[in-house]
Amino acid sequence: MKKNQNIQVQYNQLKTKSGTHSPSLATIQDFIPDLQIKVDACFLSNPYATELFLEYFKKEILDTGKINALLEFYPSQNQIIAGFIEQRLQIDSGHIFVANGAIEAIQAIIHKYCRGKLMITIPTFSAYYEYATKEHEIVYYQLNKNENYRLDVKDYIKRVNEEKPNTIILINPNNPDGGYIKYDDLILLINELNWVENIIIDESFIHFAYEDSDMALKSVVADVINKANVYVIKSMSKDFGIAGIRCGYAIMAKEKVKDILKNGYLWNMNGLAEYFFRLYAREDFLEKYDIVRRKYITESLFFISELNQIKNIKVYPSRANFVLIELLNGSTADKVTNHLICEFGVYVRNCNDKIGLDGEFIRVAARTQKENKIIIEAIKNVVEDKNLCI
Amino acid sequence: MKKNQNIQVQYNQLKTKSGTHSPSLATIQDFIPDLQIKVDACFLSNPYATELFLEYFKKEILDTGKINALLEFYPSQNQIIAGFIEQRLQIDSGHIFVANGAIEAIQAIIHKYCRGKLMITIPTFSAYYEYATKEHEIVYYQLNKNENYRLDVKDYIKRVNEEKPNTIILINPNNPDGGYIKYDDLILLINELNWVENIIIDESFIHFAYEDSDMALKSVVADVINKANVYVIKSMSKDFGIAGIRCGYAIMAKEKVKDILKNGYLWNMNGLAEYFFRLYAREDFLEKYDIVRRKYITESLFFISELNQIKNIKVYPSRANFVLIELLNGSTADKVTNHLICEFGVYVRNCNDKIGLDGEFIRVAARTQKENKIIIEAIKNVVEDKNLCI
Repeated sequence: MKKNQNIQVQYNQLKTKSGTHSPSLATIQDFIPDLQIKVDACFLSNPYATELFLEYFKKEILDTGKINALLEFYPSQNQIIAGFIEQRLQIDSGHIFVANGAIEAIQAIIHKYCRGKLMITIPTFSAYYEYATKEHEIVYYQLNKNENYRLDVKDYIKRVNEEKPNTIILINPNNPDGGYIKYDDLILLINELNWVENIIIDESFIHFAYEDSDMALKSVVADVINKANVYVIKSMSKDFGIAGIRCGYAIMAKEKVKDILKNGYLWNMNGLAEYFFRLYAREDFLEKYDIVRRKYITESLFFISELNQIKNIKVYPSRANFVLIELLNGSTADKVTNHLICEFGVYVRNCNDKIGLDGEFIRVAARTQKENKIIIEAIKNVVEDKNLCI
Repeated sequence: MKKNQNIQVQYNQLKTKSGTHSPSLATIQDFIPDLQIKVDACFLSNPYATELFLEYFKKEILDTGKINALLEFYPSQNQIIAGFIEQRLQIDSGHIFVANGAIEAIQAIIHKYCRGKLMITIPTFSAYYEYATKEHEIVYYQLNKNENYRLDVKDYIKRVNEEKPNTIILINPNNPDGGYIKYDDLILLINELNWVENIIIDESFIHFAYEDSDMALKSVVADVINKANVYVIKSMSKDFGIAGIRCGYAIMAKEKVKDILKNGYLWNMNGLAEYFFRLYAREDFLEKYDIVRRKYITESLFFISELNQIKNIKVYPSRANFVLIELLNGSTADKVTNHLICEFGVYVRNCNDKIGLDGEFIRVAARTQKENKIIIEAIKNVVEDKNLCI
């Protein structure tokens, strides 16, 4: 018990040091070697897609010895790699800015094209307000807790028309709650707000969303490609389960891509990222990927339905691979996340630094079937533990 | 012969497409599958260091299965990785901005801290002027061909005092000619020009330089760490032979690192880059690295002395792992590089897009002993080929 208390103290120190983002697995293991993490349910990714990527990577890169050249030599330039995404999305590569993780595209767009007022929907992914500079004014659009943090499209349009921001930002499905704006509603919103200087749509979790049991992928990219004021941001870390490689991109007006690349970002992609985007362009890979995408959606649905059975918590409706959970047993997110990691080896996202959330929240990602069972057992145990209540 | 002519046409098209930077090996192989590259003497790196890295990588990451977690999960945050560099350089990590390749640090510093007039020594690495924006004014300091493009420190100081630039940039040893400013001279220069707002010293090739047969490493980092106006930029791609991973850093004033990281670059490093910097901090790795560094310097010295025997060319004096070669047989750099790659599979840098060079030049990097022999034979053949003269 004393050992676990020490671990808790060390974990709290590390959490403070990491600011508003969770420390990485490697960082946790460095600082607290005694802490055994069994399941990383903080990281929002499809573990079956990771398996698929690793299968290709092993066969084509490791077993062939191509890994050597991949690590030794310079990867291709940004616009060459954009050509692989062009093949996949069937849009001109001139519209594609390939990024060292979606976060690089967020940074480039906010710093280069967003002046004046940014309207940010909260709760949200904190980089959107953290990457704003002192030259920006931020106004928040608070999602309504009583409506389960779901976006009310009409109310949102009304508020944008009143507030007149230069830039609006929407993540679909939203992080940390998984709230989903239906494709038709989002297209309507974009058209109604066509006067806004910059409309940023972050589709980093769109591969996990669905409108019915067809589980069809509903991206807005093809619809907005000719709109000079719309940006679509895409992380590949989550859907393809490859956060360590750092792959993302943004779709935007050709002139903007040209301008961004004019004096920067020429060699921002590493050799593994280049390999990933080559795979992304290939039919054989994509066909297999779509199978594991659907498999993971099914697992996530089942996982969420199981979580819904647990007492003392409220699970917010999500159309993504994670859920926002409110603690209703009088305990705090700090206590619950520490207990989950230190006693059960289950790493979840403590949301106590998320602005726009009223209450005590954690965010939990779906993993494999086997890992999901561990997560559910751990949460059940912790939220029913009377010692953790105030 | 017809096949080779086709290859030449395709290669020229690709070169035009790649702008002022050479296309990568992977890009060349995509566009011209018929072209067999035997030696990449365009890329300026230590192949023995690549071997050493691959040996560790295989043993510690591939054979242990750690590669999976490295690709799947988020790497550590920027400042955590700076901690590994702190261990190596024995300077506070607050001074270290870890970059996705040195080029990212160049971009961040030029865009964020360099206003007004930049004084750039030419010939140089083109990113320094290409990454300047329309808000910058560029003045060039032309290195004197009659002095073998070596920097005349006194003349340089005089010119800076007259021109009064906000920023000065020096690469040591310089790219593309390998001209080296001695440690004492560089310290003198930095002190004399202490009034300049930004002094950027690029030490990307410093591991290949030497002042005598001790081959001791002479970085200025420790001397400038408390100078708020000095930046030291470091690529790891060359000395450690790992361009595909994208690792670099810049040393600068703490307030500047803090400011850069305030709204950006939080997760700019990939999992392999994190592994590399962990290795970089380790004594066992560094001891082995220093052996291959010295071995490669010796190979480079021998390579350069062999090149000096070839007729019809002038090899400029270099204290780096590459040489600038002027063609004196009346042929052009275009013809010679195309011939070298298409007929001999030897890829060298065509310098016809480098500003500040007067004449026809190629840049050739040293590789392994075996590869160096191939390069030398190919160059001999080509520069003695009468058909290639005008």
